[in-house]
Amino acid sequence: MSPDIMDEPATSQGVGGLIRVRLDLAYDGTDFTGWAIQEGSDLRTVQGEVEAALATVLRVDGPLRLTVAGRTDAGVHARGQVAHVDLPAELWNRTTPEDVLRRLNGILDDDVLIHSVAAAAPGFDARFSPLSRVYRYRLCDDLKKYDPLRRHDVVLVKGPLNVAQMNEAASLLVGLRDFASFCRKRERATTIRTLIRCSFSRTDDGLVVATVEADAFCHSMVRSIVGALLDVGQGRHEPAWITRTAEALERTAAIQVAPALGLTLEEIVYPPDEDLPAQAERTRRRRA
Amino acid sequence: MSPDIMDEPATSQGVGGLIRVRLDLAYDGTDFTGWAIQEGSDLRTVQGEVEAALATVLRVDGPLRLTVAGRTDAGVHARGQVAHVDLPAELWNRTTPEDVLRRLNGILDDDVLIHSVAAAAPGFDARFSPLSRVYRYRLCDDLKKYDPLRRHDVVLVKGPLNVAQMNEAASLLVGLRDFASFCRKRERATTIRTLIRCSFSRTDDGLVVATVEADAFCHSMVRSIVGALLDVGQGRHEPAWITRTAEALERTAAIQVAPALGLTLEEIVYPPDEDLPAQAERTRRRRA
Repeated sequence: MSPDIMDEPATSQGVGGLIRVRLDLAYDGTDFTGWAIQEGSDLRTVQGEVEAALATVLRVDGPLRLTVAGRTDAGVHARGQVAHVDLPAELWNRTTPEDVLRRLNGILDDDVLIHSVAAAAPGFDARFSPLSRVYRYRLCDDLKKYDPLRRHDVVLVKGPLNVAQMNEAASLLVGLRDFASFCRKRERATTIRTLIRCSFSRTDDGLVVATVEADAFCHSMVRSIVGALLDVGQGRHEPAWITRTAEALERTAAIQVAPALGLTLEEIVYPPDEDLPAQAERTRRRRA
Repeated sequence: MSPDIMDEPATSQGVGGLIRVRLDLAYDGTDFTGWAIQEGSDLRTVQGEVEAALATVLRVDGPLRLTVAGRTDAGVHARGQVAHVDLPAELWNRTTPEDVLRRLNGILDDDVLIHSVAAAAPGFDARFSPLSRVYRYRLCDDLKKYDPLRRHDVVLVKGPLNVAQMNEAASLLVGLRDFASFCRKRERATTIRTLIRCSFSRTDDGLVVATVEADAFCHSMVRSIVGALLDVGQGRHEPAWITRTAEALERTAAIQVAPALGLTLEEIVYPPDEDLPAQAERTRRRRA
């Protein structure tokens, strides 16, 4: 969690001869120690792999720093991750986006895939422009339907889960509130967030899938919320318990953190291009 | 491919004090050299793993031979595989099916999962009772939608695929015919099969999925059919070409065999219990 990114100057096309480039990507988080490079270690991270591949493709010696929309933890997957990098215009103009895309995917291992590479819209900031982030958490509560092919992103739990009770509890969390009970504490960082959506549904292939959307998430927030709601779904608590838990504003051992492997970052929701600069400004002011 | 299974006596409950037990299972074929034990080798096979686990759970020294509905090749997956094993009644009655199931799954690695274990209906034969086998082959023809989490069971191909043309060609193969053009030849084995269903559809998550159903399949038949239809979908042949290819009754290098990893055995269709003995008898007579 390098806090320096908070203080980055707002670059965009043209400023200082830099072009902001947007990357859309997906990865199987199983064999990664999360998104973020951990300084001083050689752990395999998505950021590390993509930055190295980008440097190779663009033939740059120095580091190319990616700014990401959702910093996923070790073992968490992504289908709709977004990042940006600011490149000297002469570097970017030397080649085509299609060529960069093709060569990046040629270099990267097959558990990470770049879906697109393109010059970003003016004012775009992967981290500060999003309106919201959407995560899904996948559970299976029936051994008879558990698919070994999905063991990397579906968690088998004791069932049957009471999905109606889970949804009743989940609805009590929706809205603007302090999520301190569900976040790993960090000094001088707010834990106030707007939870836009939190609901569970059964799918045709026997899964129970949580969709959790917020303006932003604190560390381990989705997994703590899912862990708490799992307690409700398995009958250990009534739905109303979640309100008392949230209001305690204290993280306790009573809340289990659901395993990382069930969690996938599905989508980063950005405003229309014309609203990008204003949205980034609003976010920066709110976080500061 | 041990042909001895063809000559097995038709055992069922009670005969010689044996109980026929049905196992329903699923596996990720990635790290298996297929279903069948290869005599004289120590390659990892699904049959080998499950037979060994079963022997451990039931505390049997000798080999417990499984008879399977669909002998999948190396790398091919299964969600709806079915097998049977004939056990001495005193062995089976010593424990409960639930206990056997729980202990089997406790021993087996997590790329194979037993969904159920139960005494089979009278006359049931995993191999000879099926009305049909259903396979699915999963393709993705759009890099932007390719999900690295599905790289173990979805094959990325050059697109966009012309699904309408693929379906036109596929429909020309449906019915009773000699599939010699799509089968690896085996001495004295017929290649006449009834193809019940063969069609492609686009899914919401960007895949093109082939559903292929037949009374039974010859070796590499699904992958050869999908490979040929891929040629149509990518514009290398007109749909009518498939009819000429089928009528040649000769396997040629012109037909590519689609990679194993895209193929999954989804379902074994059995008749209602009361028709089981008659169906097994019909199949045995036809194959002989």
